[in-house]
Amino acid sequence: MALWLKEGPDSDVVISTRARLARNMKGVAFPAIIKGTPKAKEVMRPAIETFVENADFRFIGMKEIEPIERARLTEDHIISKDLAMREDGAVIVSPDESLSIMLMEEDAYRLQCMLPGLQTDKALSLVSELDKMLGKNVEYAYDDELGFLTGCITNVGTGLRMSAMLHLPALTMTHAINRLIQQVGQLGLTVRGIYGEGSEASGNIYQISNQLTLGLSEAEIIQNVRAVVENLVEQERRLRRELMTEKHLDMCDAICRALAILKSARKMDTKEALRLLSSVNIGISEKVISGMTSAEIYNTILAVLPANLSRKGMTAEQRDERRAQLLRKMTAKAVIVEE
Amino acid sequence: MALWLKEGPDSDVVISTRARLARNMKGVAFPAIIKGTPKAKEVMRPAIETFVENADFRFIGMKEIEPIERARLTEDHIISKDLAMREDGAVIVSPDESLSIMLMEEDAYRLQCMLPGLQTDKALSLVSELDKMLGKNVEYAYDDELGFLTGCITNVGTGLRMSAMLHLPALTMTHAINRLIQQVGQLGLTVRGIYGEGSEASGNIYQISNQLTLGLSEAEIIQNVRAVVENLVEQERRLRRELMTEKHLDMCDAICRALAILKSARKMDTKEALRLLSSVNIGISEKVISGMTSAEIYNTILAVLPANLSRKGMTAEQRDERRAQLLRKMTAKAVIVEE
Repeated sequence: MALWLKEGPDSDVVISTRARLARNMKGVAFPAIIKGTPKAKEVMRPAIETFVENADFRFIGMKEIEPIERARLTEDHIISKDLAMREDGAVIVSPDESLSIMLMEEDAYRLQCMLPGLQTDKALSLVSELDKMLGKNVEYAYDDELGFLTGCITNVGTGLRMSAMLHLPALTMTHAINRLIQQVGQLGLTVRGIYGEGSEASGNIYQISNQLTLGLSEAEIIQNVRAVVENLVEQERRLRRELMTEKHLDMCDAICRALAILKSARKMDTKEALRLLSSVNIGISEKVISGMTSAEIYNTILAVLPANLSRKGMTAEQRDERRAQLLRKMTAKAVIVEE
Repeated sequence: MALWLKEGPDSDVVISTRARLARNMKGVAFPAIIKGTPKAKEVMRPAIETFVENADFRFIGMKEIEPIERARLTEDHIISKDLAMREDGAVIVSPDESLSIMLMEEDAYRLQCMLPGLQTDKALSLVSELDKMLGKNVEYAYDDELGFLTGCITNVGTGLRMSAMLHLPALTMTHAINRLIQQVGQLGLTVRGIYGEGSEASGNIYQISNQLTLGLSEAEIIQNVRAVVENLVEQERRLRRELMTEKHLDMCDAICRALAILKSARKMDTKEALRLLSSVNIGISEKVISGMTSAEIYNTILAVLPANLSRKGMTAEQRDERRAQLLRKMTAKAVIVEE
């Protein structure tokens, strides 16, 4: 189990917090501009030296791994979809995969820390350490007026993107989420589905992140994201409680059925699995279900996504069968709390 | 539990067999023609004398019982919908409800025997005994050429209607049933849904019965019904086996989910309950489920039908909640046989 899927603060609603810093090398063309140049080696050398040779991080070159393994790393949020498609790209990861450095993505370096639950400060402090370590071996592209220079204009400045992944089944169910997404947008933050830009919010999972880094300090960015996330957490919690009170029978029925199906089905597609796991997570936070934590639900969600399930040559049907097998196993401990 | 819901021959497919004899009183207008006449007493007297005073049958007058109790008797197939609506009607039932005599339905007397599974000969012999007993106290309307005279032309002759209630989920699922219904019709038999003429075949339950009684002997009627039923039983069984072989995963998935939902739901409507119980019955006959018999499934179907569930002043939602409660209890013993 990835470290960031262990129980964290507010994990009834917040799956994980991620801090990411974009950095480039002074005097070397940014990967966003020139792909596949010999510069890749120049960019990678200091990172490998810092984290692989002088620490216990692991180097994974994109061209060295199978497409299915790239997809697995994407689903685990270790690498981006863009990096998965770059033959000259690579990622360096800490043993528990909570820390990682993408190399030759849109920027030369993307330093990342991912933690379970809501932990903005800790995520920033950990990723800043990586930044300091790497900064000893690399002269960053930096402008006194603009700050750190990046491949995309939206990252110029601190280069910090702070994001949190939230599980909002109640807000989604009642369609209250649509209004909230608009409001969050007006505060300069973006709301995306589970796999970043353009992806649907499958499984009622949403990613909240700052849109701009220029003109804001790291502290201000963190403060903004944190305030919005805390507000969403409060609203989701209130709504779950409200639904459990006002639609008690319907909610209990949906939760009991969801768990029963997860524990029994012989085949299941991703969409249904995410929908049922959403209901079970409400069941856990509302104490209708015991024996399983929210973090274990998030871990289960991750485990049953297509790339994590797939083995070479597997058909879609075999995948659905394996998904059901895994779900039976992973939900076996969960039980309905009898009233 | 009604006697006819105990385990009987071929009960993996055949729920019950029913033999019914229509009789009228010589010189007294048939109820089909004149409703609510003082003749009712004249008709009832000898039947009460025969079965209530000189045996341990129970007399139930329609106007003495609540509409909900009439509906219960209709769902249990003890009385017809028509009788339930006749204020002057009544029924006399044996202690285990397997034998009954409807009074003042379409005919003065409708003697009935209902047994579990496929038991055409026994059902006829038992109902014939009732006929002989009543015949000692009543002079029947009889014509030497036509046979017994009845309210409806289709019953003239022997007055015998032999029917069997079948559970045909596999034939229904594959739509093979439509062709079979046509074929059965060409053999002079009718196929109806669970509640007789005009009702939909809900829960994949069908009633096969002879359409005509005139010009055929009792033995011929029985032979016809029996042959058709045996054929349908064979086809249903073959299809269940075929589905389990060719669509093994789909079938196991449907069966496991159905049982899990029945054991867990907090509310359920009739339609879903019948659909899920159908899957579970296939699971029992194909040895995917143990701990529960087909007869218990049929008993459960009966128990969760609206009239059997209803209590005075219950809302539809309360009924759905009670149905789920009952289903959880009645399916509690059933378990998936692990492969």
